[in-house]
Amino acid sequence: MDLISLADIRAAADRVRGHVVRTPLLSCPWSETPLWLKPENLQPVGAFKIRGVVNALAHLDAAAREAGVVTHSSGNHGQALAYAARARGLHCVVVVPEGASRVKVAAMRRFGAEIVTVPPAERQATTRKLLEERGLTLVPPFDAPEIIAGQGTVGEEICQDLAEPGTVLVPVGGGGLASGVATAVRQLSPGTRVLGVEPELAGDAAESLRVGQLVTWSPEWTRRTIADGTRVGLSELTFAHLRARLDGIVTVTENEIRSAMGTIARESRIVAEPSGAVALAAVMAGRVPAKGPTVAVVSGGNVEPSLLSEVVASERRG
Amino acid sequence: MDLISLADIRAAADRVRGHVVRTPLLSCPWSETPLWLKPENLQPVGAFKIRGVVNALAHLDAAAREAGVVTHSSGNHGQALAYAARARGLHCVVVVPEGASRVKVAAMRRFGAEIVTVPPAERQATTRKLLEERGLTLVPPFDAPEIIAGQGTVGEEICQDLAEPGTVLVPVGGGGLASGVATAVRQLSPGTRVLGVEPELAGDAAESLRVGQLVTWSPEWTRRTIADGTRVGLSELTFAHLRARLDGIVTVTENEIRSAMGTIARESRIVAEPSGAVALAAVMAGRVPAKGPTVAVVSGGNVEPSLLSEVVASERRG
Repeated sequence: MDLISLADIRAAADRVRGHVVRTPLLSCPWSETPLWLKPENLQPVGAFKIRGVVNALAHLDAAAREAGVVTHSSGNHGQALAYAARARGLHCVVVVPEGASRVKVAAMRRFGAEIVTVPPAERQATTRKLLEERGLTLVPPFDAPEIIAGQGTVGEEICQDLAEPGTVLVPVGGGGLASGVATAVRQLSPGTRVLGVEPELAGDAAESLRVGQLVTWSPEWTRRTIADGTRVGLSELTFAHLRARLDGIVTVTENEIRSAMGTIARESRIVAEPSGAVALAAVMAGRVPAKGPTVAVVSGGNVEPSLLSEVVASERRG
Repeated sequence: MDLISLADIRAAADRVRGHVVRTPLLSCPWSETPLWLKPENLQPVGAFKIRGVVNALAHLDAAAREAGVVTHSSGNHGQALAYAARARGLHCVVVVPEGASRVKVAAMRRFGAEIVTVPPAERQATTRKLLEERGLTLVPPFDAPEIIAGQGTVGEEICQDLAEPGTVLVPVGGGGLASGVATAVRQLSPGTRVLGVEPELAGDAAESLRVGQLVTWSPEWTRRTIADGTRVGLSELTFAHLRARLDGIVTVTENEIRSAMGTIARESRIVAEPSGAVALAAVMAGRVPAKGPTVAVVSGGNVEPSLLSEVVASERRG
């Protein structure tokens, strides 16, 4: 299987410049060990997803641009696609299951997306039908080289801002972000260890790496974690990237995730969603043996206000 | 009275580079009008204060560096000075009143500051004594040209990132930030309107501009606002800058401040302290007639967890 290269990521960096926030690295003077956060929650839709989407849209030819794009993710990817499509003047259709979060659907509508609501079991079929009948282009959340290359710009920026970090920690859901970041960092800073992080309760990627083949956990099983962005499984493409380029995956507990969310808000003054807090959770819980300055990617910040309020108010450190 | 110039701010920008976070402008797709936030809460001590302090320390001669620095602010300025002094290897003394926030004192200690605790009435006298006996240099929170020039780098960066904003809104406490930002923006983008914002309950700067002379409100009076960073009054130096270079000051209510804090956390995924939210509060409350793209400076994010938790949980917009 063909893996993406650093050149793909550099080309993506040229395409996303000016369309995404060039996020700074934030030092953490409150941490006892040298620690930096890469705050992708600062992107306009609150997640790194915008990077891959902008890169993917830049690849469309004139006919595809004319017809528009479609996805069936109603989470951060759907919002990112709706936002980026509007910025380029493209029509965007999002197929959402009945019962999807009204807040998220409202956000996609605000970005001008056409919402097609269907019973959950019909999402794939409806999407396929839209592709055929209306000539729309499918923009998947992670299973495409252009998406992975776009997410990899996060890794390139980390290496621009911090010479030779000891460890870079990246949340793993579908694996697009981790695949891209590992590709960039391994090339640009060969001495740096790149680790994925996921919740124990959605530890399918860790198990896949351990057994050496793609393992899928059922949605009923991964639904147990509050880190909704990590519930999805890898694809063959992202698994191939992670197996070749990641130094390992560590897992964290639900309490560790909540605690990290609170610390990020109180001490670093940014809002992380549960999936966005897993990398810091791994550092705080001591699940990563120290090795030089550490960078934890905060992948997103789209969290229910009630959960945010709860984690902020619970125990404070120091 | 001599006012600072754009050249002073540009020189400060060279000195602070690499020592402060180059904060991006964050677009607000959730806003109905074009709106950007300048998130100074992302600085390592959670506030813009680090800019002025780093610039001031760069001006010290060898003898002054040897002796060290002192201040009697136990708020964001004290933390910023302790942090910046440690980074330069300078000794830092902070004179704090008995009963000061233990969290803030602990943070200053963590940055290596020597804490001298005195009865509130003795702060000035003790500071003076330290200046004389130990040859320390006083680094004030706002009443010095180097401090104002450092804070002005916020304004220069805004103009680098956004061509000709219609309006720039800046919180006003002691007036150092507003003085610096107004100086930079007025020169770099003459068509832009620069407005200060303060709470109604600490509206001393607005009254000073209105009556044309420096008006001081008693601490008992300004203590009524939750926006603790705006309780302090202007100095003659900052008043002179604001009178010459600001287009006006608007005031906001306590409820408007709380509401803006909640919106910033939920919709822009960053944490603002009450003083840091006043500029956005002015926009959201419709206190600023629309005039092109608007930039609201979020000056800091050091907020009590209980208050943050409360504003996040209350009513959400949209």
